[in-house]
Amino acid sequence: MKNHQVRLAARPVGEIKRSDWQLTEDDVAQPKDGEFVVKVEYISLDPAMRGWMNDARSYIRPVAIGEVMRAGAGGTVIESKHADFKEGDIVTGALGVQEYAVTDGKGVRKVDTRIVKLPTYLGTLGAPGMTAYFGLLEVGKPRAGETVVVSGAAGAVGSVVGQIAKIKGCRVVGIAGGADKCKLLIDEFGFDAAIDYKNEDVKAKLKEHCPKGIDVYFDNVGGEILDAALARIAMHARIVICGAISQYNATTPVKGPANYLSLLVNRGTMTGIVVFDYVDRYGEAAREMAGWIAEGKLKAKEDVVPGGIAAFHDTLQKLFTGGNTGKLVLQVP
Amino acid sequence: MKNHQVRLAARPVGEIKRSDWQLTEDDVAQPKDGEFVVKVEYISLDPAMRGWMNDARSYIRPVAIGEVMRAGAGGTVIESKHADFKEGDIVTGALGVQEYAVTDGKGVRKVDTRIVKLPTYLGTLGAPGMTAYFGLLEVGKPRAGETVVVSGAAGAVGSVVGQIAKIKGCRVVGIAGGADKCKLLIDEFGFDAAIDYKNEDVKAKLKEHCPKGIDVYFDNVGGEILDAALARIAMHARIVICGAISQYNATTPVKGPANYLSLLVNRGTMTGIVVFDYVDRYGEAAREMAGWIAEGKLKAKEDVVPGGIAAFHDTLQKLFTGGNTGKLVLQVP
Repeated sequence: MKNHQVRLAARPVGEIKRSDWQLTEDDVAQPKDGEFVVKVEYISLDPAMRGWMNDARSYIRPVAIGEVMRAGAGGTVIESKHADFKEGDIVTGALGVQEYAVTDGKGVRKVDTRIVKLPTYLGTLGAPGMTAYFGLLEVGKPRAGETVVVSGAAGAVGSVVGQIAKIKGCRVVGIAGGADKCKLLIDEFGFDAAIDYKNEDVKAKLKEHCPKGIDVYFDNVGGEILDAALARIAMHARIVICGAISQYNATTPVKGPANYLSLLVNRGTMTGIVVFDYVDRYGEAAREMAGWIAEGKLKAKEDVVPGGIAAFHDTLQKLFTGGNTGKLVLQVP
Repeated sequence: MKNHQVRLAARPVGEIKRSDWQLTEDDVAQPKDGEFVVKVEYISLDPAMRGWMNDARSYIRPVAIGEVMRAGAGGTVIESKHADFKEGDIVTGALGVQEYAVTDGKGVRKVDTRIVKLPTYLGTLGAPGMTAYFGLLEVGKPRAGETVVVSGAAGAVGSVVGQIAKIKGCRVVGIAGGADKCKLLIDEFGFDAAIDYKNEDVKAKLKEHCPKGIDVYFDNVGGEILDAALARIAMHARIVICGAISQYNATTPVKGPANYLSLLVNRGTMTGIVVFDYVDRYGEAAREMAGWIAEGKLKAKEDVVPGGIAAFHDTLQKLFTGGNTGKLVLQVP
């Protein structure tokens, strides 16, 4: 049985090139005692992947040259010598960009796909959903009646942030690229307002939609949108720094937020979040969010792209061009 | 009896010019019922003054064109129709850049100069000291054994921040301009290390002096030094944004901190502070700091410049050129 993998071939400078990847083939390894084999069905594509490709100190070690690209993924156990996992179990974990993964089960969990389908465990009930849940509730600390603004609002994290903020009784404004995404934010996810950063003046629209200022700003994009939000924060605002996709491919130094002194004027706070810090509480969050899904209060949306790992490079680009809506997932045939 | 005042004549672009001020003379007004007259003896010169000159939304309204320049000051009551203040009382408050101030007593407090001299009530026991105390303890929240770094360390706020951090059992590193100031930080204020940003590589020196990273960074300067500190923060670091004197005269957009994503990597937080929020607790802080002064644990240092209000413009420049050490105070003959 053959396994195909995507390995990191070179560290990208600026945008990721096809030549930064190497497609390799080998035999599926036999599991040793305490290991099992997963046939991968869905691979999670995330903005964070761009950072893992850099040789820089970060919250997780870089992927090594020649190593299978790190990725969250979901699939079915097809062979097991592990006491806790048996053939037929459906699991998710950091299985990598490959068709079969042999694992000792560390960080792998069984999921129940009778009600919630497997791709949702990579999105709303996976790392992006956990990021939204803990970033918003533990760092942003929104109170009912407050105004919450989220950028990258149609993405895997942003769409969940906005919906949870609505559940908590906030006024929610999303920033996304394009009229279709903005329509979706309002019609599908129940946001109060949406700003199309590709066609509208973000600063002017934030003023219009946030007359009392922004109490919580959840930032996935950085750059000029972060600056526009800073210019509009309310007193004691909380800014959650989750990501900065506008800057990840930059070959010039990152654009720092020129309006950061608004933190001083408004006694605001800006805090970074890494979801792994909350891993002990994922279960609690997943139960609550599954409940919201069941009640119809939280809509999970995935953009599942077929094509298998050969389509990995092209599909990943969608994150940086704004091509996806909801959680981007690569389907492995 | 004649009064001389410095009034704002024009809003500066970039550095303050002499022509941005107007020196005026009129008669000292007679106090009405509920008012009193203070003969001003010391005027506090602060970096924040630069911000008050701009016509921009901030934590306090701008000084109007033609208005007496806002300033903290100290002096003696020479005539009173106010029940709580009598001739001979020594007071401090926002009395402005002038020789005599008629006031209704709002924000004016009596001080005891038998042990602590009047200029110290404008520095360590005034707004700069309160800024240091509440910014460090309430926002920075240093714990014994942690590493605290402060920029503008030889200034009115920075020198107090570093000394309080030492009192709390921290390792303290100060950043200041010039070998003399750095020597003072160590010999006089008891800092563990000092970095001369004018002659040393701040990033390399931070690495040397903060081997476990920076737990609390108290920023008075912004710009490249803020970026160097961000690059060196420890996990869960707290950055206190108190000021950004390197940027106040900028005619180009403020340089935002390009390394702000270090907040994400290190789960750090960056929070702005305005001392006025703690006005109800000034008494508590002043009592504790006066105790430290009496015990010799906290040294109050003022740079008192004679010359009266005619010397206001030239003396204020010292803040922006790094000419002062400790609290800059203008003496009114």
